[in-house]
Amino acid sequence: MKLATLRVGGSTRAVRLDGDRLIDLGAADLGEFLAGGDWAARAAAADTTRAYPAEGADFAPVVPRPSKIVCVGLNYKNHIQEMGRDLPRHPTLFAKFADSLIGAADEIARPAETEEFDWEVELAAVIGAPVRRARGRAAEAAIAGFTVLNDITCRDWQFRTREWLQGKMWDSSTPVGPYVVTPDELPGGVRPRLEVALSVDGEVMQRDNTGDLLFDPVALVEYVSTVVRLNPGDIIATGTPGGVGHARDPRRYLTGGERVVAEIQGVGRLENTVAGERAS
Amino acid sequence: MKLATLRVGGSTRAVRLDGDRLIDLGAADLGEFLAGGDWAARAAAADTTRAYPAEGADFAPVVPRPSKIVCVGLNYKNHIQEMGRDLPRHPTLFAKFADSLIGAADEIARPAETEEFDWEVELAAVIGAPVRRARGRAAEAAIAGFTVLNDITCRDWQFRTREWLQGKMWDSSTPVGPYVVTPDELPGGVRPRLEVALSVDGEVMQRDNTGDLLFDPVALVEYVSTVVRLNPGDIIATGTPGGVGHARDPRRYLTGGERVVAEIQGVGRLENTVAGERAS
Repeated sequence: MKLATLRVGGSTRAVRLDGDRLIDLGAADLGEFLAGGDWAARAAAADTTRAYPAEGADFAPVVPRPSKIVCVGLNYKNHIQEMGRDLPRHPTLFAKFADSLIGAADEIARPAETEEFDWEVELAAVIGAPVRRARGRAAEAAIAGFTVLNDITCRDWQFRTREWLQGKMWDSSTPVGPYVVTPDELPGGVRPRLEVALSVDGEVMQRDNTGDLLFDPVALVEYVSTVVRLNPGDIIATGTPGGVGHARDPRRYLTGGERVVAEIQGVGRLENTVAGERAS
Repeated sequence: MKLATLRVGGSTRAVRLDGDRLIDLGAADLGEFLAGGDWAARAAAADTTRAYPAEGADFAPVVPRPSKIVCVGLNYKNHIQEMGRDLPRHPTLFAKFADSLIGAADEIARPAETEEFDWEVELAAVIGAPVRRARGRAAEAAIAGFTVLNDITCRDWQFRTREWLQGKMWDSSTPVGPYVVTPDELPGGVRPRLEVALSVDGEVMQRDNTGDLLFDPVALVEYVSTVVRLNPGDIIATGTPGGVGHARDPRRYLTGGERVVAEIQGVGRLENTVAGERAS
């Protein structure tokens, strides 16, 4: 099952993909729909007469207002080891807020205040049920599905201080979507083994497989839900593989006008143009 | 003017303090009320016939669901210098989510997973108007008022990795309130000069003056709003002075049962008991 939040006439609607149509799920967005409970059965049973064409669909952030977005630092084993580091015992977590999110085809707002605007393709888990201290099967069941997130980062701001947040929470900079794909459609299920890649103007910059994650999505739900409750629609971004611009030799950054494509096999594809933004 | 969110019969209401009464402001909470715009005039003109007694009031988090909570690291000059550090050029920012917030007299949930549960009294600014890249007067005008926040922290989790978030976002651990006090009622206005103190079981642990902040509330609104839009109800916690348990010799932590009082002159007082919580 593929679920999304569609922009329709100045508002948004939660939808399910059915062939070439997007079936209206009777909620304003996917976060609201998931929060209604028993969402898989309700999505399957939705009245198919109210629908929109999938072609030319204008996707909002797949969950527009999650109560939390928790992101994971270095999490691909290959990349950690190629950097000569030991595998960490605990995931490194940082935050984003909803105001950073944009849709799967929206322009990425590149602020005039950065000289080091970088990419990070990530598999993101979307929570489908409220959980706290979830373990094993409960953690697995809390994952509604997966989506693609491009954790666009201002490296100069990320490293201004010892906390990364100010490089990570820029307004309208983080594409997420287009769909949440349920685990039953993916090889590996809630621990998916999927090709992940990112290109800039057609040049492949990142390529890896989500099977290489040190902390898999279920482990992350267990860990984060130990600390704080997870709510339907919450997003956990699982970290990015090697190949970011800041780690290349020579370094590469987005300066404006580029076409950035982030894709995860079977999950979806973000295609975004980097748009210059003027500082006041 | 003193504004709050009151728990009333299983729900909440935005209120304004008027003598010994809390006037109903016609909104479900203070975040919703501030988002309605022109809030100062509406609060002043509110129908005074619908009211609740101030005595025995049960305060919710002063804004229960802010779209963001941005916290500042080390920000008291005395404390930075006594630690032998140089004054930083940029504020260190980290996040919390709404699920951490509790009311001014609620029990603080001490998780069984920590051995180093610590206190941090802070002056917090509450945003009253949507702003991005606000400068000078616009940044000043964006501050609806100030409240007290106790940034309770699991030090062992804070320092597990290089990002602090996982020590800072524990569920139901962060008291905030009871009131938002408008700047016109405070010495120094939007750059208030106020005694700030925290005690544990009557023993004073932290005492300083908010006039010593390196980055004052207006500077913080300018800085954070450069990165991301600020929305009505958003909270910026301005950092804590010296005297936290982790920096004491010998170290001191909250083990359960303590009475923690965090107070800022003219702004308000949080009084919370530390309650043990069982891990599953």
